[in-house]
Amino acid sequence: MYIAVMGYGTVGAGVVKVLKMNRDHISRKSRHGPIDVKYILEIREVTDENAHLVTKNFNDILNDKDIHVVVETMGGIHPAFDYVSACLKAGKSVVTSNKELVAEKGLELLTLARANQVNFTFEASVAGGIPIIRPLSGSLNGNIIEEVAGIINGTTNFILTKMITENMPYADALRLAQEKGYAEKDPTADVEGIDACRKICILSALAFGKHVHPRQVCTEGISKLDLKDTKYAGELGYVIKLLGRSKRVGDQISVMVSPALVKKESLLANVSGVNNAVLVRANAVGEIMMYGPGAGMMPTASAVVGDVIDCCNHYMRPKFFGWSEDAGDDFIKDYLDVETALFIRVDRSVDKAKIKEAFGDVDIIEKDDVAFITPVAAERELRIKAEGLGCEVKSVIRVTDY
Amino acid sequence: MYIAVMGYGTVGAGVVKVLKMNRDHISRKSRHGPIDVKYILEIREVTDENAHLVTKNFNDILNDKDIHVVVETMGGIHPAFDYVSACLKAGKSVVTSNKELVAEKGLELLTLARANQVNFTFEASVAGGIPIIRPLSGSLNGNIIEEVAGIINGTTNFILTKMITENMPYADALRLAQEKGYAEKDPTADVEGIDACRKICILSALAFGKHVHPRQVCTEGISKLDLKDTKYAGELGYVIKLLGRSKRVGDQISVMVSPALVKKESLLANVSGVNNAVLVRANAVGEIMMYGPGAGMMPTASAVVGDVIDCCNHYMRPKFFGWSEDAGDDFIKDYLDVETALFIRVDRSVDKAKIKEAFGDVDIIEKDDVAFITPVAAERELRIKAEGLGCEVKSVIRVTDY
Repeated sequence: MYIAVMGYGTVGAGVVKVLKMNRDHISRKSRHGPIDVKYILEIREVTDENAHLVTKNFNDILNDKDIHVVVETMGGIHPAFDYVSACLKAGKSVVTSNKELVAEKGLELLTLARANQVNFTFEASVAGGIPIIRPLSGSLNGNIIEEVAGIINGTTNFILTKMITENMPYADALRLAQEKGYAEKDPTADVEGIDACRKICILSALAFGKHVHPRQVCTEGISKLDLKDTKYAGELGYVIKLLGRSKRVGDQISVMVSPALVKKESLLANVSGVNNAVLVRANAVGEIMMYGPGAGMMPTASAVVGDVIDCCNHYMRPKFFGWSEDAGDDFIKDYLDVETALFIRVDRSVDKAKIKEAFGDVDIIEKDDVAFITPVAAERELRIKAEGLGCEVKSVIRVTDY
Repeated sequence: MYIAVMGYGTVGAGVVKVLKMNRDHISRKSRHGPIDVKYILEIREVTDENAHLVTKNFNDILNDKDIHVVVETMGGIHPAFDYVSACLKAGKSVVTSNKELVAEKGLELLTLARANQVNFTFEASVAGGIPIIRPLSGSLNGNIIEEVAGIINGTTNFILTKMITENMPYADALRLAQEKGYAEKDPTADVEGIDACRKICILSALAFGKHVHPRQVCTEGISKLDLKDTKYAGELGYVIKLLGRSKRVGDQISVMVSPALVKKESLLANVSGVNNAVLVRANAVGEIMMYGPGAGMMPTASAVVGDVIDCCNHYMRPKFFGWSEDAGDDFIKDYLDVETALFIRVDRSVDKAKIKEAFGDVDIIEKDDVAFITPVAAERELRIKAEGLGCEVKSVIRVTDY
């Protein structure tokens, strides 16, 4: 089988590398023997040993009848969306690592793939090398999914790990992440939760069958977190993680990205550095978790190549992800109506009797600031009570039951 | 689609329950609509609401052309092997949760399935509800697997958790496990590692493509573990877990089941109670881990039903697991030749200068007994040195790098 790789950045180069490195092994896992790259679509100059495969003309790939599977590792929506659409219409399966494309256009592209009896797969788009798309849409098919929650951004998990374990201030940890190449020069997409938002949209669609758009997700990053938050949370027995969460609540779902308190002894709390983990709660299996490297050249390429082999083996047999309609806004529950506990940090001027009056007999931490964890109630109600304390509310962070 | 369930014990009853409970949901995940149970094969009396489905005659199932998928949840080799073989020969796919059957007869049954263009699947045979078979033989197909290691027996993990966290002696923890229904009256298969051995055979076959027989695996249980071992290991920064491990070493593999020291901060160390976890190291993805409930009615049924849906969707399309030949004994490396570090506990009469002379400048714990961890070397060499210390060697436990 011959394939084409569109986009020769880190992930694209990794895909070509893995296919070469493990060629014999892969040929034994593939129904139709070896899988080789025939084209690399890349407009920048390529000078390595794969330069002879490079084309700048997308039509070379589109018009080549030998190419049944195309890998899209360009990133972004344009021109990826047009290229992927054209490939699917031409009867070629497409494998992508592009979470922005899947989060924005997944439903459209899956519908197009189905209409053309080919596959559109995207294991690499969430949590890098960790198998999560396939478990959610395969092994767990007998379950009704109740909740998906994950540490799905490695950059922010690295920063939080430094804040928690080394008491390093946010700005220093961010700088370190940039030095190590984990964070971009402009870190907005990571630290403001935009990247995690795309991924929780994809996981929500697989878990609940409806396309959730990034604009429908209440999204909050970690840039406002203070060392006082991580420290006080620690003393209360919790660790702060940036979580993407999607949960069935009655006939609706609650989807959000935000920092959240996780119990210290939970496995999620022990996921450190750039690693990712995704927890799934479902009505037959109970609770499971998948853990591993959430990004990087080789782990992401591992997921892409797994999909490529699957697409080669299932040519003209479209997979069914059950991702089949748009989530209307009425399917998404207002986050303020969702029940949760909150970690609240206020300034020292607070009257502690008022805290107990508003929230009951909660444990109160008194240091430079005062912090406590509320009982579970609708977030709106808790926030109104917090504002009624008559002092500055410095931070409000959700508390999970993981 | 109609299916049959052979064996109406805990798992079989769970399968019928999940198919009913999630029927609408499952019908949307299945290419051919709803999946219903037409027969339950059970020789014991059944009095619940499914009694009308019960038959004592296997031929009812075998001869019914409506039945394309059969679930085997009887356990044991006889008559499961004969029934499963007959079903496969009759063009019916078979889904099993029976680890003994898969560990002993997996290659034979997969070969038979392939010859008859049907599927033989067994996600539930290892680690209950945790997706592990499918990730190993699907998502990770682009990787050369280097190592698989797991906590794959919930009973012993429950006992060890009690010993470690509550300092409860082995015999008391075993009794508690029996009271809670986690351990059988005769706990041999669990506590002596026989159950874990079957599961590591299955994982080895998937990871390395060759059928490893239980008799080829160096197997040691937890029945000889002393609280001193768990306590001293703890002081050295480790937790003791019963691990099944299979690892590529040159052209061979090393396969074993034994108690092993795992670093306290590793995720495996934090897998507690009856939960299971499987860690995979592979040449592209690096290290990933899957975690969840390793046994129980509903989690195991979850895995079976996932396979059932897959078999219904892939009727006459056999999956390829790459499990294709027997592992000759020369494929299995003698465990004494495998490099490892060892935790060694000896009696107080030991001459500590001799320890340093034999093993270098190791940290030594002195309590009622004396314990230390050796550097990495061939196990044979380390054991010979330990015997040369001229004192009673009370326990020797392998130390991992997880």
